Amino acid sequence: MPLRFVEPAAEAHPFPLTIRHLLDGVLTKAGDQRLIYRNQASYSYRELMGRIGRLASLLEALGTEQGMTVAMMDWDSHRYLESYFAVPMMGAVLQTVNVRLPSSQIAYTLQHAKAEIILVHRDFFPIIEAIRHTLPEVKTVIAIMDGADEALPTWVAGEYETLSAVASPDYSFVDFDENAVATTFYTTGTTGNPKGVCFTHRQLVLHTLASCGPFGASSASPSLGIDDVYMPLTPMFHVHAWGLPYIATMLGVKQVYPGRYEPAMICDLRSRHGVTYSHCVPTVLEMVLKAADQSGADLTGWKMTIGGSALAKALCAEGRQRGMLIGAGYGMSETCPVIVKAAGRTPEDVATEEAMLSTFTVAGITVPLVDVRIVDDAMNALPHDGVTWGELVVRTPWLTSCYVGDAKASAELWRGGWMHTQDIATIDPQGRVQIRDRLKDVVKTGGEWVDSIQLEELVSTSEGVAEATVIAVPDAKWGERPLAVVVPLPGMTPTLVSINVPVEKAIADGAITRFARLDRFVILDALPRTSVGKIDKKVLRARFNEEAGVST
Amino acid sequence: MPLRFVEPAAEAHPFPLTIRHLLDGVLTKAGDQRLIYRNQASYSYRELMGRIGRLASLLEALGTEQGMTVAMMDWDSHRYLESYFAVPMMGAVLQTVNVRLPSSQIAYTLQHAKAEIILVHRDFFPIIEAIRHTLPEVKTVIAIMDGADEALPTWVAGEYETLSAVASPDYSFVDFDENAVATTFYTTGTTGNPKGVCFTHRQLVLHTLASCGPFGASSASPSLGIDDVYMPLTPMFHVHAWGLPYIATMLGVKQVYPGRYEPAMICDLRSRHGVTYSHCVPTVLEMVLKAADQSGADLTGWKMTIGGSALAKALCAEGRQRGMLIGAGYGMSETCPVIVKAAGRTPEDVATEEAMLSTFTVAGITVPLVDVRIVDDAMNALPHDGVTWGELVVRTPWLTSCYVGDAKASAELWRGGWMHTQDIATIDPQGRVQIRDRLKDVVKTGGEWVDSIQLEELVSTSEGVAEATVIAVPDAKWGERPLAVVVPLPGMTPTLVSINVPVEKAIADGAITRFARLDRFVILDALPRTSVGKIDKKVLRARFNEEAGVST
Repeated sequence: MPLRFVEPAAEAHPFPLTIRHLLDGVLTKAGDQRLIYRNQASYSYRELMGRIGRLASLLEALGTEQGMTVAMMDWDSHRYLESYFAVPMMGAVLQTVNVRLPSSQIAYTLQHAKAEIILVHRDFFPIIEAIRHTLPEVKTVIAIMDGADEALPTWVAGEYETLSAVASPDYSFVDFDENAVATTFYTTGTTGNPKGVCFTHRQLVLHTLASCGPFGASSASPSLGIDDVYMPLTPMFHVHAWGLPYIATMLGVKQVYPGRYEPAMICDLRSRHGVTYSHCVPTVLEMVLKAADQSGADLTGWKMTIGGSALAKALCAEGRQRGMLIGAGYGMSETCPVIVKAAGRTPEDVATEEAMLSTFTVAGITVPLVDVRIVDDAMNALPHDGVTWGELVVRTPWLTSCYVGDAKASAELWRGGWMHTQDIATIDPQGRVQIRDRLKDVVKTGGEWVDSIQLEELVSTSEGVAEATVIAVPDAKWGERPLAVVVPLPGMTPTLVSINVPVEKAIADGAITRFARLDRFVILDALPRTSVGKIDKKVLRARFNEEAGVST
Repeated sequence: MPLRFVEPAAEAHPFPLTIRHLLDGVLTKAGDQRLIYRNQASYSYRELMGRIGRLASLLEALGTEQGMTVAMMDWDSHRYLESYFAVPMMGAVLQTVNVRLPSSQIAYTLQHAKAEIILVHRDFFPIIEAIRHTLPEVKTVIAIMDGADEALPTWVAGEYETLSAVASPDYSFVDFDENAVATTFYTTGTTGNPKGVCFTHRQLVLHTLASCGPFGASSASPSLGIDDVYMPLTPMFHVHAWGLPYIATMLGVKQVYPGRYEPAMICDLRSRHGVTYSHCVPTVLEMVLKAADQSGADLTGWKMTIGGSALAKALCAEGRQRGMLIGAGYGMSETCPVIVKAAGRTPEDVATEEAMLSTFTVAGITVPLVDVRIVDDAMNALPHDGVTWGELVVRTPWLTSCYVGDAKASAELWRGGWMHTQDIATIDPQGRVQIRDRLKDVVKTGGEWVDSIQLEELVSTSEGVAEATVIAVPDAKWGERPLAVVVPLPGMTPTLVSINVPVEKAIADGAITRFARLDRFVILDALPRTSVGKIDKKVLRARFNEEAGVST
């Protein structure tokens, strides 16, 4: 027999999963709820709806059509939030531009995405000034003056607030195919040009619903609930700020946007507006802790989800000592991004401080509708025993279906019908995914895999070391050997012996393979970092693979 | 320009929203988690997956095909849970039969749904025995003996566990169109035969995701989280037990199924297995409280969502006094069912015990993706001022798109592009929906609307009254007048004066219109109830509309 279908009533409301529906019911329950931008703006959700309408009206007046790309270059702002909704809701595509890339790469991404309209904060005028002659497809640039009373560049069509003020708040948004592309942005790979990922309306709606699931049942687990106050500390150009602005708006919670990240401003906004939930990379958490120590700000009760890099137990403990609830999450540009979140599920998971630190620094368990595996090179599923390493592969409805316009990379991404994260992970019998290393960062030496993350954590704790990282360098005898790259504390001179002290202890404890014992290291003044603040091992590999064996 | 679409990688995993995907990742994180059935069965999620496979294999062996209806008649059991998944995952349609209906109506619903296979608990053999000659389309009946060592009726093809034991656990479920019908069941309307509603895979997946949203952020709000232990106390034939078995399974929590509701067994299961979250109608909560009082069972920490009827503050307070967290929710057969849930969002909402009672007895605020309005007869939207009454109409992706095979009722249900609940509600400026009355129960008298629910609550508190309800009866002068139907306490004889005492006080306080003053009432030994335990005003109206004015 065929599957059963029924004929809906003629007037039954069709309900595609388009982003506009994330706003359904929001005005009813949160019309008077507030949105805050630094110390510059405070307005209600009722006004937010009007501002979303105004942005769409002004974009339409400037020629924006369905399918067109509108690029956003702003700090984390209420305007960015408005663009998250208005642009896709018009049927256009929002490009969230990584403003930390070199100008030439920003130009490349704007060209590749075929951006025709750009909204740009005045801080980024020099970038546009430098590259605009390379962007023939750009029809219109809208300036975001952010309160500054300065003349507009000659090449802009107008100013965001000025144009917005005279545009109609009553834009008539309509429904359309939920599989239309809503957002696009670029991920910087190991080689070559940045690669474009994209997400459809359906994907973003499903990600929003599934990733806000009840992970907060344990009071120890950081999660955004309907009585929280939200402030992002992840750039909004970076994978939809992990999807939280969509969740926060759907739930109708009070939101605070910090603009350009300034530690003092962040702590001030947090205390003034009672912020209870944020999310960031470890570096930003460190920055916040330092600022709070200087100002004496109280951080009690601030919940934070940490992603982007591994959350070290020491950092988690530092936050917890200040009364914060800290927990890891994991995802990437290709995954929208949320895949797993740390969660306490049993009394044992949260019984002691040490248990808490273990529970909440492991990347976590899958959110609903996510299927994960660890696999070997031949795509064989590996056991979930907590010790076997394999590449983490994923299935869920919100993964980028391709790299835009790059069939070869797309095929590689989806090889074997699973999306390849290129991260090496273990999965334990309770389903906890722990990221062990990047596939390309793992050190394969003497037939053993050395966990570069674990090794660099050990070296980081050695005497006289401020920061450390580990990369693989080619070795004639062993295949590869680990190379420690070390930034000393002021006035200190770490040695091969001193950096190996914690490593030897871990070997003696059986916590790491003896192949991890370091036989070479280099000292640098600072570690190179990527545009999102991660240590740039690509740069280190390029440099030290060529001069392997230095400084042993 | 057209909308933008991208070409997915050839191997990109397609991901329809079919029910099988609610199980994605569950085995990874909850393989060893337990499912309990009374004191008869305890098994792991790993075994659950096998049992779902076995059920599908045995149904297939008995001729079940895609599109076929498989009817379930069981108490709340692990088997029912298995059918929630196995039947729709095969592409067949699960009919959850309301076993409390009269046999003739059960026969009607089985005929109307074209059920070809019936799974039936031995307690319901007499029903099937009585009606099976009226069911020519039924090919196969499978007996659920529930551990009883008795001979099978001659007309069954085998026994659930016996057949299951020899069936393969490795049924190969495949994906298909997410808009295929997954479930169907019947709602008893005011007139005529029961009406069939149906829900697609897509609708059930979206309902599962959206209705488990983070309403539990406030510790005072009852909600199912990943560290809870779940036990349904709403019949599983009744609107998917409000969707919770799907949520609980997706989250991988421990589940306890109580079988036929027996208060002592329920309290025993609750304490033995540490149940922390349940849901039920007010009558069942009353029953549980009474049983606990008799046995001295500790109810502390038991979270309960109450729906089906209004949650009286007095009952909520009784539960709270025993350390329970009680909160209302609202929905109906046509809505899958969850539309709104009670929630504390501000400190004021939960500041005092009185505030808690107000917050958690109001039906609540919308869950994500739900849009509600109150409208007048002409579908004009009415203000959200907390006092204006109107019919509650709804839009969300999980509403039944029709009454199966009833075009006229379907058109009426969706008149004007909104689904009509036939409930009268107010919405306050914070978005709290409060159900005031059934559209057909409201008393329109002298140009005023009298809240029959409020009036019956007042009468219920009058001296000598055990239970009371209020219906409208025709009146030549006033259009309609309220008629109180009263069940006295043993040995008591309420009078028109005595039942009006709380009403007069409410009129004096301005809490109710003076048109509510009762001028007629009747005394009955008991109130008629529907199959799901609600007071059957339809029966009362039929009786007293014809003899209006009696007993004044």
